[in-house]
Amino acid sequence: MSNPTAIFLISCPDQKGIVARLAGFVYQHGGNIVDSDHHSDLQAGRFLGRIELEVEGLDLDRAGLRKGFAAIADPMGGHWELHFSDVVPRIALWCSKQEHCLLDLLWRHQAGELGAEIALVLSNHATLRRHVEPLGIPFHVVPITRETREAAEARELALLRSEGVDLVILAKYMQVLSPAFLEAFPSVINIHHSFLPAFAGAQPYHQAHARGVKLIGATAHYVTPDLDSGPIIDQDVVRVSHRDTVEDLVRKGRDMERLALSRAVRLHLQHRVLTYGNKTVVFE
Amino acid sequence: MSNPTAIFLISCPDQKGIVARLAGFVYQHGGNIVDSDHHSDLQAGRFLGRIELEVEGLDLDRAGLRKGFAAIADPMGGHWELHFSDVVPRIALWCSKQEHCLLDLLWRHQAGELGAEIALVLSNHATLRRHVEPLGIPFHVVPITRETREAAEARELALLRSEGVDLVILAKYMQVLSPAFLEAFPSVINIHHSFLPAFAGAQPYHQAHARGVKLIGATAHYVTPDLDSGPIIDQDVVRVSHRDTVEDLVRKGRDMERLALSRAVRLHLQHRVLTYGNKTVVFE
Amino acid sequence: MSNPTAIFLISCPDQKGIVARLAGFVYQHGGNIVDSDHHSDLQAGRFLGRIELEVEGLDLDRAGLRKGFAAIADPMGGHWELHFSDVVPRIALWCSKQEHCLLDLLWRHQAGELGAEIALVLSNHATLRRHVEPLGIPFHVVPITRETREAAEARELALLRSEGVDLVILAKYMQVLSPAFLEAFPSVINIHHSFLPAFAGAQPYHQAHARGVKLIGATAHYVTPDLDSGPIIDQDVVRVSHRDTVEDLVRKGRDMERLALSRAVRLHLQHRVLTYGNKTVVFE
Amino acid sequence: MSNPTAIFLISCPDQKGIVARLAGFVYQHGGNIVDSDHHSDLQAGRFLGRIELEVEGLDLDRAGLRKGFAAIADPMGGHWELHFSDVVPRIALWCSKQEHCLLDLLWRHQAGELGAEIALVLSNHATLRRHVEPLGIPFHVVPITRETREAAEARELALLRSEGVDLVILAKYMQVLSPAFLEAFPSVINIHHSFLPAFAGAQPYHQAHARGVKLIGATAHYVTPDLDSGPIIDQDVVRVSHRDTVEDLVRKGRDMERLALSRAVRLHLQHRVLTYGNKTVVFE
Repeated sequence: MSNPTAIFLISCPDQKGIVARLAGFVYQHGGNIVDSDHHSDLQAGRFLGRIELEVEGLDLDRAGLRKGFAAIADPMGGHWELHFSDVVPRIALWCSKQEHCLLDLLWRHQAGELGAEIALVLSNHATLRRHVEPLGIPFHVVPITRETREAAEARELALLRSEGVDLVILAKYMQVLSPAFLEAFPSVINIHHSFLPAFAGAQPYHQAHARGVKLIGATAHYVTPDLDSGPIIDQDVVRVSHRDTVEDLVRKGRDMERLALSRAVRLHLQHRVLTYGNKTVVFE
Repeated sequence: MSNPTAIFLISCPDQKGIVARLAGFVYQHGGNIVDSDHHSDLQAGRFLGRIELEVEGLDLDRAGLRKGFAAIADPMGGHWELHFSDVVPRIALWCSKQEHCLLDLLWRHQAGELGAEIALVLSNHATLRRHVEPLGIPFHVVPITRETREAAEARELALLRSEGVDLVILAKYMQVLSPAFLEAFPSVINIHHSFLPAFAGAQPYHQAHARGVKLIGATAHYVTPDLDSGPIIDQDVVRVSHRDTVEDLVRKGRDMERLALSRAVRLHLQHRVLTYGNKTVVFE
Repeated sequence: MSNPTAIFLISCPDQKGIVARLAGFVYQHGGNIVDSDHHSDLQAGRFLGRIELEVEGLDLDRAGLRKGFAAIADPMGGHWELHFSDVVPRIALWCSKQEHCLLDLLWRHQAGELGAEIALVLSNHATLRRHVEPLGIPFHVVPITRETREAAEARELALLRSEGVDLVILAKYMQVLSPAFLEAFPSVINIHHSFLPAFAGAQPYHQAHARGVKLIGATAHYVTPDLDSGPIIDQDVVRVSHRDTVEDLVRKGRDMERLALSRAVRLHLQHRVLTYGNKTVVFE
Repeated sequence: MSNPTAIFLISCPDQKGIVARLAGFVYQHGGNIVDSDHHSDLQAGRFLGRIELEVEGLDLDRAGLRKGFAAIADPMGGHWELHFSDVVPRIALWCSKQEHCLLDLLWRHQAGELGAEIALVLSNHATLRRHVEPLGIPFHVVPITRETREAAEARELALLRSEGVDLVILAKYMQVLSPAFLEAFPSVINIHHSFLPAFAGAQPYHQAHARGVKLIGATAHYVTPDLDSGPIIDQDVVRVSHRDTVEDLVRKGRDMERLALSRAVRLHLQHRVLTYGNKTVVFE
């Protein structure tokens, strides 16, 4: 609908002139910056930035743009990425038996909210197949047990690679990914059904009910080998009362899970999230 | 401004006819119920109820009303209370060096929001004296160290008793109360500067900043010997971002502390809170 | 899953002894009240109450229970209803071309959140047929123009009656219902895409964007002949900023529409909402 | 506590190279940008930006910096400002008889949240004098009636000028300012006790109660001659129910008024707000 843009993300040691050099480079080549935002973490001595510019009007092709950014960013040390808004990311939705997050993402995909292509849906159960295949999206069942985990993950990894998947979304997948898997494929977002770090681990709604909290929540985060401890992208909460049973918490919590997960996924897919240490910077 | 009411609170094993017997008793004696609310925790087999009735028009005096309620409630087992809205509770505000919760409660008191009399303010430091004495409220300094705790608490307890205090509010008191003190005076509300059970213990804002959460909160709870684990009365949260330093979290958190604490205190003073197990029922 | 309950709702002039008579009647007949809540609007001199009791254990059949409640409630004047939790209400979802509210309600229905049977989906366009018929739910297209409105509404009314529909939900139906229709079928819930009374009328998101508000919202309300002015059941809001275009407001607003509408529908279907004047009492 | 920074704000027709020229200029002169944010309103063809840089390390003095920015910004057309973080703005708080917003701002001032000097408090009544003078802040009473408005405003204007006031904050001042006054002194923030544009005008809480809304709110906005229609800086809402009387709405609303007003004032004082048309851009 709109003209393609290039999105440049950078995380590097803080130093003078970063914005000037980047914006100057874009301007020299006829580019028009439509959005730029940066954050300096003075404590950590770190610069984190995002520049979005129109591709049209540049006197460089995309390879030239990449080369130019590299020439500036590489000497600064750290990490940078260049994305183009018309290169649609490919995502894989992983689920188990609960459908609410899966259906929500499928609907948002159809509504054009995500800006991604769903390459496949994967589950350790066949339960949700009927929601997926009618949409023309491949549905893969990969059962998993303690004994078969290694083989299953190998199969999953092969699938992600053959399908060119950029991001895995754990839409209530309810299985732990091994450190080896995450090293091979680190781009994974999970939804945890509590406002972390409260109620990490199993059955957070039961824990919340037992503790008698007045707010319950959900947390969307990047997955790391350390369970429920990855960088948080988004969180949301809803008020509960003594009248709410565990089942009510589950029901109310589902809405927060859908909201937090879909917002986190959208932010990631628009290249608005950078991680450093165990935190995220979200350029909203 | 309004006619006095009687407030009857009960927590007992669930059984048939509780509401009928209580409402029938009130009606027989010409009483008018202006508010009644109850909750049955089916899992715990517990009935928790609150009835508020106009005193005017009753053919019983207050002692007779108490006797009548006792005759119904005692056989049911459990715990009951009878309060009168024109008997103004006496509260003690305990603080240390931070003034925001103290000033907020002082202001709400002057604005008539609390419906209580402030019997005294107590602190382990003299810092906030200048905010209190000009209002004609006694300010007591009771220094406390590990060695002097026992003597200090004895002195505090004597003060609470001689002043007829009904409720102690820890408005950022920052000191742990001993189990012995709490046994002698159990009616204590504290404000913790996190959405418990996340970030219990010291320096929750530093913990929250290190964890990179996207929401921070505050929790008002009854104090029990088990630190930061008492029954929760109210919680509130506010959105934060990567731009927020620890100082920003402290600043934003102060607003949540003031809101959650003042709401919890008001609910307690209106006799709208019952505890059972480690939870509260809040009749709003 | 649970034992059937009877739900008695009443709205009448405030008077002494209402709770006593109702609770006494239930107790006399061996009933167990599991939830009771009432509200006295002292200004309006109105009593509004809800009692939920277990059917099992009563020494009356359902007709007898109805007769008994009538004997108490009729003399009080006003309006009362008796519902049974195992009599599943039948609802009709009316939509136009936008699918988000329809899909959300269909999903919640499948998840067992609504506690109702979807008798039919009706639309003035065929657009959303493909989402409905695969679920085995009848989809009716009733086109409507200024000229055909009267005939169309007659057809709709006949359909609602022949299908025994209890509640119509306007899930982004985007058409005005005539006063005559609403007189014949008054039980209609609508979702308006603003926090009413702000931005009543057409294109509220455009209005909100032009005004530069920092919060946008959605309002679920009963439909009355006076457009966008019916009794409000629930509202929700979300924060927006200058970065949000009208399209972003529409996207963010959809989530609030889904939340507010589904909560309002659930509350209505659990017989937790009473209207009086142009307001609602919501027994949560 | 931190090194002084310069804050440059600009609103001009959108054009290529703005960021490059500004950041390049800063870099050339040895400056370190600690925060930069901009927004392009593509519809309005407008660029709105904020750059914050450390003063230390620049090879220009402040006059030179101003001259340099002018040389870049003036040719772009539009409006620009340059502020220095160590030049503390002087504010005037205007109130009437209600104290909650005034006390809140006084407390935040003492807590160091505002980063401003309170030059004076002004009121049309003497009611709140006792809260102000003990803090050593001048309190001016300027009574106002329809007949004396012109003379009163002249006196107020003279006072603002002689005291070098940069911003007037209407902390429940409850009086309309004339167009002539606003032309002479346009920098005025007001708090309105509703989520505008709902319930503009008088007695919004009564209006909200009569309408039966489920959320009430507050709006902080710049004052324009068109009543309650100025650019909105911040809004907040709180949930209410049928149990809340008008008095409860007033009480709950006061908290939202304090939050929205204090946030808006802080954002303005940190030079984070730009207006264009009837809207604001808030660089948070």
